[in-house]
Amino acid sequence: MRSDNAARSAFPDDVQLLDTTLRDGEQAPGVSLTPDQKVEIAEALAAADVDVIEAGSACTSEGERDCIRRVTDLNLDATVTSFARGIRSDIDHALDCDVDGITLVVPSSDKHIETKVGSTREEVIESSVDLVEYATDHDLWVELLGEDGSRADPEFLVDLAEAGHEAGADRFCYADTVGHASPEHTYDVVAQLAELGPTSVHTHDDLGFGMTNVHAGLRAGADFVHGTVNGIGERAGNVAIEEVAIALSHSYDIETLNLPAVYELARTVSQNTGVQLAPNKAVIGENTFTHESGIHTDGTLKDGAMYEPYPPETVGRERRLVLGKHAGRAGVEAGLNEHGVEVTDDELAAIVERVKTLGERDKRVTDADLLAIAEDVQGRDRERYVELLTLTTASGGEVPTASVKLRVGDEERTAANTGSGPVDAAVKAVRQALGPAANAELDSFHVDAITGGTDAVVTVEVEMTRGDHTVTVAASDSDITRASVDAMVDALDRLLAASPPEQPVADD
Amino acid sequence: MRSDNAARSAFPDDVQLLDTTLRDGEQAPGVSLTPDQKVEIAEALAAADVDVIEAGSACTSEGERDCIRRVTDLNLDATVTSFARGIRSDIDHALDCDVDGITLVVPSSDKHIETKVGSTREEVIESSVDLVEYATDHDLWVELLGEDGSRADPEFLVDLAEAGHEAGADRFCYADTVGHASPEHTYDVVAQLAELGPTSVHTHDDLGFGMTNVHAGLRAGADFVHGTVNGIGERAGNVAIEEVAIALSHSYDIETLNLPAVYELARTVSQNTGVQLAPNKAVIGENTFTHESGIHTDGTLKDGAMYEPYPPETVGRERRLVLGKHAGRAGVEAGLNEHGVEVTDDELAAIVERVKTLGERDKRVTDADLLAIAEDVQGRDRERYVELLTLTTASGGEVPTASVKLRVGDEERTAANTGSGPVDAAVKAVRQALGPAANAELDSFHVDAITGGTDAVVTVEVEMTRGDHTVTVAASDSDITRASVDAMVDALDRLLAASPPEQPVADD
Repeated sequence: MRSDNAARSAFPDDVQLLDTTLRDGEQAPGVSLTPDQKVEIAEALAAADVDVIEAGSACTSEGERDCIRRVTDLNLDATVTSFARGIRSDIDHALDCDVDGITLVVPSSDKHIETKVGSTREEVIESSVDLVEYATDHDLWVELLGEDGSRADPEFLVDLAEAGHEAGADRFCYADTVGHASPEHTYDVVAQLAELGPTSVHTHDDLGFGMTNVHAGLRAGADFVHGTVNGIGERAGNVAIEEVAIALSHSYDIETLNLPAVYELARTVSQNTGVQLAPNKAVIGENTFTHESGIHTDGTLKDGAMYEPYPPETVGRERRLVLGKHAGRAGVEAGLNEHGVEVTDDELAAIVERVKTLGERDKRVTDADLLAIAEDVQGRDRERYVELLTLTTASGGEVPTASVKLRVGDEERTAANTGSGPVDAAVKAVRQALGPAANAELDSFHVDAITGGTDAVVTVEVEMTRGDHTVTVAASDSDITRASVDAMVDALDRLLAASPPEQPVADD
Repeated sequence: MRSDNAARSAFPDDVQLLDTTLRDGEQAPGVSLTPDQKVEIAEALAAADVDVIEAGSACTSEGERDCIRRVTDLNLDATVTSFARGIRSDIDHALDCDVDGITLVVPSSDKHIETKVGSTREEVIESSVDLVEYATDHDLWVELLGEDGSRADPEFLVDLAEAGHEAGADRFCYADTVGHASPEHTYDVVAQLAELGPTSVHTHDDLGFGMTNVHAGLRAGADFVHGTVNGIGERAGNVAIEEVAIALSHSYDIETLNLPAVYELARTVSQNTGVQLAPNKAVIGENTFTHESGIHTDGTLKDGAMYEPYPPETVGRERRLVLGKHAGRAGVEAGLNEHGVEVTDDELAAIVERVKTLGERDKRVTDADLLAIAEDVQGRDRERYVELLTLTTASGGEVPTASVKLRVGDEERTAANTGSGPVDAAVKAVRQALGPAANAELDSFHVDAITGGTDAVVTVEVEMTRGDHTVTVAASDSDITRASVDAMVDALDRLLAASPPEQPVADD
């Protein structure tokens, strides 16, 4: 992917990535991965062509070592490593797991050397040399990392790196452990380190400089970057590996990851760690390829690249156009066409106004909202296929139970069902009342995080598909059960209206 | 705040920030702010000392103009501006709102000039000059912005900026509208623009280079940065203004925002826009000052700065230590001490093991979990003060209703109540059954976003305070009502056990 502003100078020809999602990422508060989850993530990392997978920290526990062994047993097309502190037993534990290499982490700032481990600079260098020799004697790939390197005396860091290289380390890593460095400092120090041998950079984002320091390090001669998927990690996290990969590809023609596999990798990590992504997270956020405002939607319909630096397919994604308060004619018309609705120019103008008004009030304008507005503007008095007449749920005890009464065409239908909770029971009762002719799939069921109080209004958004027709509907209520059923009944009504079943909706 | 690696050279002495949360931020998909919300955000921006507040886009609608007028009427200690396209009526609309200035946005890349608006380079320059003169004649502060500037021919951008300055524009803005630029390109172009007059940078984060391009622009001579709170905006969003502010302060001693007001500002924007923050968002994410792993917690207890580049108080926040699978002795002991529990060394070792095991399985280790483990290890058979015997909820109809039967001490208590939904009704019933002696506050009630299906397990986390004692409890169930009540009853039980009421818990 050659971009017109590819920088020609100063950058290395080849850059390799070390992913530490399974080690630094797993140290993020609240994150804990089971062995199966670690294996699933390791496989996704290999599918995305990560060069080095730091699979964990072998010293932690027997359980952690079993995990790392399961990853090494996969024989992935990647170098698999373990984190090791500057202690011989940590290297032995790593060897036990059959890893290809280690990142050997020793303190390098005086704060860490003196206050944290109660040692001296001389002792750190001496033991580092011993341990590097011990590890290379056991045929391990060895990366020596000076922890808190960005707050270390640069002269000591140079001494440490030099001693490491002489002892046989494959590379030395400059670590901005606490996310403290300015890009100028990173550049100055990495430039000195890179003269001594292969150099890596490990950055954190506490100042928002995670990526800027990677850039400074590469300009200064580093050729190896540590990162995590989605940028998870301690505090503000590590630099996001997918951002490094797309930036290097787009701006410097340096290919690191298999980019079309990146989105799947990001989802695998997000689902398994439970760490939510901001909608505007670069590359992989929900909205990164979504256009809402009129100007942007209009431009994007003329030319996909109008408001995008690279096509979503590059990273395994698709473009989305949505409607809201900034909607314009082009976007609304495209939305109506998707549902087979034709309108005149005057009708379109009126619909755009109504969509904007609704967007101002409600934030989301779903397919159902758009179609309801169009019907109203066109004076079409569509009769609902399905309507909720009553809903009753009982829960708290052993078996959550719900019943619904629906009007389906001219008929009233009642059904009751049980479920894992009141929402589940109610949704099952609706399906039962409709019967098999309403064979619609619930593609997604989403409730935003609830904060504030027990009486907060909850918004439930469902996406349902029937045949080749998909609709999105949202409903809000302070009763989550009511909001869920309202959204689902509305979605079913829309789907059945769009392509009525050949036979009247039948009983079970 | 002078840091030891403050870069001395190349940077401007003074940098000003333009916040476009109310314009670019509000264009993010799904975001829509009411006039009251816009006013609240504008006040928070002024409290954080933002230099320029772009209050909206006056051309959008009469409603938008009313909003902007409400902001200008506040007479904030900040320059208030409107976005204006290259159309005279847009400037008139801005004048109608009594703004101090405008950012005048004209196309600058051939893709935008030719494909989007069907114009020519010559016409763009000609009309820009006219409009800048028109605006300055009306005493407006004028910033001319070449949209899609990072994909424009740099020679044309220079011509446009030169014409703008000659016509009287206060500054020219280099805009990486689609988040496409490499830092090298930004540096090259901004260096040329900065020779012509005051220069701003407007960056987006599609490549993860939002902040790196700000840095490159400032090095090249820009002295004015556009950003949004929390980095919200189209697609991957704009650069986050709070990251720019902390980075400039920490690394270059350049003060822009009132940093202690930044967290409140970030929360105001997050709550009003509904855009969720990733837990690892720099500066303002939930985990940015949270330490969980043993090594980090241990180090942080020795010296708060061990794993932090700047103290949380700098940005109006507090440090948190939490427990999980990476817990160590120091962190667990600190947690126990907080609840007045003393343990022997052997007991501590056993508790640490159990905390780690629970962390591996459950992800969150709350105060209630820690105390339950300690009781078990110490062989204390604490009797529960409060226990849930039965819970019944009915909802879906007009009045969501719930009843509970609790054991409180030796007594059984039954109460029923109604609420806005079944959760609210059940929580009120619990409070009613306990009576006023259990005067505990529900500080926070949080449910993670639910995705996947209607039968997903839901985790409810509550934080409750009674007197000066606070506990956090989480409970999971596929029935949200059950999980909410379980968590709340457990929290109340812990609080009452810690400091029993002087009188037996009384009836209403």
